[in-house]
Amino acid sequence: MASNILPPALKRLVDNLSKLPGIGEKTATRLALFILRGSEQQAQELAKSILEIHKSIKLCSICFTFSDQDPCPICSNPKRDKSIVCVVEEPGDLLAMEKAGEFKGRYHVLHGVLSPRDGIGPEELRLSQLKNRIEREKIKELIIATSPTMAGEATAAYISKMLSKMNITITRIACGVPMGMDIKYADPVTLKKALEARRPI
Amino acid sequence: MASNILPPALKRLVDNLSKLPGIGEKTATRLALFILRGSEQQAQELAKSILEIHKSIKLCSICFTFSDQDPCPICSNPKRDKSIVCVVEEPGDLLAMEKAGEFKGRYHVLHGVLSPRDGIGPEELRLSQLKNRIEREKIKELIIATSPTMAGEATAAYISKMLSKMNITITRIACGVPMGMDIKYADPVTLKKALEARRPI
Repeated sequence: MASNILPPALKRLVDNLSKLPGIGEKTATRLALFILRGSEQQAQELAKSILEIHKSIKLCSICFTFSDQDPCPICSNPKRDKSIVCVVEEPGDLLAMEKAGEFKGRYHVLHGVLSPRDGIGPEELRLSQLKNRIEREKIKELIIATSPTMAGEATAAYISKMLSKMNITITRIACGVPMGMDIKYADPVTLKKALEARRPI
Repeated sequence: MASNILPPALKRLVDNLSKLPGIGEKTATRLALFILRGSEQQAQELAKSILEIHKSIKLCSICFTFSDQDPCPICSNPKRDKSIVCVVEEPGDLLAMEKAGEFKGRYHVLHGVLSPRDGIGPEELRLSQLKNRIEREKIKELIIATSPTMAGEATAAYISKMLSKMNITITRIACGVPMGMDIKYADPVTLKKALEARRPI
């Protein structure tokens, strides 16, 4: 957006905001102008919270989610069922799961999915730590909740195969038509999955 | 998004990002997790650029746009036509105009529109400065380029009335069907305006 006429400091902020996911140059310009229009104190608070985040938040050494405690509040909560572990791709997926409020076990965060093209193999995904956890913590069920995307499905299949010799139940979250969705807008692959996974009512 | 289970530092960043326009809690969470996943150096660069912006960027004392120089590069550019001034609501509108590349005069940035409900009257909009500029700089034409919204139209009408006694041509940017838009998706008010403003071809 006419970036050549932006003052350098504004340009730098726009460039840095543009690096965030889903933020293009136009949105970044709008956000930067908003920050500039606001008070200096508000801008300082935002900057401070960005600086703080890396300092105070680390990975939980058990489940690898982001946390300011180690182990994280979920792993150290005695009310959570230790025998069942839900495998998710990202900490954001864990948050979505917690919001649903259904799952009472613990998690294992992979921080990615298998993607040979991007150089992400099993070593990058904390899969050996998952194997160790299963042995060490006497886990009975592993729910694989990677996204139903190509890479998520491949990762689920890889984990399932990797653990096939272990005495553990491995399940996959159901794929189907989302609640509230009009059937006529559902994509064919989802409908196919929803039909395959039909259950008696 | 399950904000009660977020570590405090992450929660603070999500809260601060949520204050930005168009960023809800869900997007803010996604951005915060992205910043956390990235390197600490990247986060520091983003924070630094936010802190810098208020320090190095002020308002141009002539046109009131954001600038690191005073007067701003446009006001101090001898190639820009001083006799014609385009009135815009926000610095972002000035950027959009510059991107279009058509306008060769100078600007006057109101930093808002008349909005009695929000306590924004003529005093808040640098309208006396506009009047002074017209006298001082011998401006011949004023193009009012506030948005064709209710408040933008009211502001345009107010400015036009305020300056009616002065020896100056006041024009308003054309309102019509945007380029590339399918007529059948144009809203009725826009179509009405487009018909009223029809021109011989």
